[in-house]
Amino acid sequence: MITSSSNSRMKEIVQLNKKAKTRYEQRVFVVEGMKMCMEAPREQIQAMYVSEGFLADDGNRERIEGYEFEVVSDSVFSHISDTKTPQGILCLVRMPEYGLEDLLGERPHLLVLESIQDPGNLGTMVRTGEGAGITGLIMDRTTVDIFNPKAIRATMGSLFRVPFYVAEDLAGTVAALKGRGISMYAAHLSGAFSYDQPDYAAPCGFLVGNEAKGLSREIADLADAYIRIPMEGKVESLNAAVASALLMYEASRQRR
Amino acid sequence: MITSSSNSRMKEIVQLNKKAKTRYEQRVFVVEGMKMCMEAPREQIQAMYVSEGFLADDGNRERIEGYEFEVVSDSVFSHISDTKTPQGILCLVRMPEYGLEDLLGERPHLLVLESIQDPGNLGTMVRTGEGAGITGLIMDRTTVDIFNPKAIRATMGSLFRVPFYVAEDLAGTVAALKGRGISMYAAHLSGAFSYDQPDYAAPCGFLVGNEAKGLSREIADLADAYIRIPMEGKVESLNAAVASALLMYEASRQRR
Repeated sequence: MITSSSNSRMKEIVQLNKKAKTRYEQRVFVVEGMKMCMEAPREQIQAMYVSEGFLADDGNRERIEGYEFEVVSDSVFSHISDTKTPQGILCLVRMPEYGLEDLLGERPHLLVLESIQDPGNLGTMVRTGEGAGITGLIMDRTTVDIFNPKAIRATMGSLFRVPFYVAEDLAGTVAALKGRGISMYAAHLSGAFSYDQPDYAAPCGFLVGNEAKGLSREIADLADAYIRIPMEGKVESLNAAVASALLMYEASRQRR
Repeated sequence: MITSSSNSRMKEIVQLNKKAKTRYEQRVFVVEGMKMCMEAPREQIQAMYVSEGFLADDGNRERIEGYEFEVVSDSVFSHISDTKTPQGILCLVRMPEYGLEDLLGERPHLLVLESIQDPGNLGTMVRTGEGAGITGLIMDRTTVDIFNPKAIRATMGSLFRVPFYVAEDLAGTVAALKGRGISMYAAHLSGAFSYDQPDYAAPCGFLVGNEAKGLSREIADLADAYIRIPMEGKVESLNAAVASALLMYEASRQRR
């Protein structure tokens, strides 16, 4: 049993939770909690750590039967956990590798994000995206890391099922997708069309920008059309995860 | 200038941020930040506090011209603020008082919440609700306090414009609304109808339950119909604020 927080692997987990740089150097991220660990593809799990307290529960022991794991003391687990009330189980998972091709499915339905900053928003978008049947998620380099612990938690496991791609050059990627016949719709406060007017049955993608500033001019200009979500009252904008949900689900509704 | 955190009014602000009980005893809540303070109805503002640093900025001083305020030192402001990076302005605001009548508008469109626990979710629902044109928000006693600082922030000012009502007896309130010809739709995983099938042009309300457990049997049973949001992949449920947004905006879409 690991009883010291200064154990080198424990220190590494803390760094993996804290720093995107460490995650990408090792191409590994941390997932916490029973549900998330059980949903992680088995072959991508590199290590599993459970707390003493976790292991004292028969139900818990049964569920991790067949997994290799190491036990750490409760206090060490609190130290390596990113949550206030740790469930006592976490895994190190190898990052999946998707190419842009993997995101297109039979009939592309994409969410394309520019500079989303809130990890909870990003994670919620992945979760909602899976529900709405998107074929993939594209993010630029300035979007918060999808392997941020808060983002991972908010995906509720959808992270393991929605293909995603971080574009080094978002404008170039969007242009390439348009070249393949995918219509791009920019969520924009000055949109000419209400979001429920275009026909999303054909291959499509939604461009959604930063929580405070929206899309950059460069990316918005690439869109085939600007669409807006009508807002009553004095609301200036919607939460980015809510706006994305309305767009993705409108496409899903039309395609049903 | 107030320079001590042990000043009795400073202590009171800390308590108002921390405890719903204190808020309801005094019927006062705290709002922070320039945008929220400027959107608070003037006649409901009981006091305004700004930090030294805030006041050093000419733009800031201009914007609060005509308001009565007190200055506190930057360190005291950090102490009374609920945020990590305080903007340096907060107000004590008297709670608005709405009766159920005030929530019905010309054509009722209600969001009815049972036991929502996350203040960010609740605040986002208020913000989205204003955008979707709901006429009012009803919550039960076990829903997180709408005057919780995190909930207030997430409303982005919509708190001051969407009428709301905390029902002592949610079942009784829902029954009373049905008696007035308002159709009630329960968001439910086992819904017989997709959420876009019913006609929401007539007076309607959406019943949305706890993030983990959904609606209680008692409340769900009162609904005129169960509706579900179709979900692809392995998604078990959507975030409660996202689900509410899809329902409220579907009604809004149909009514346009």
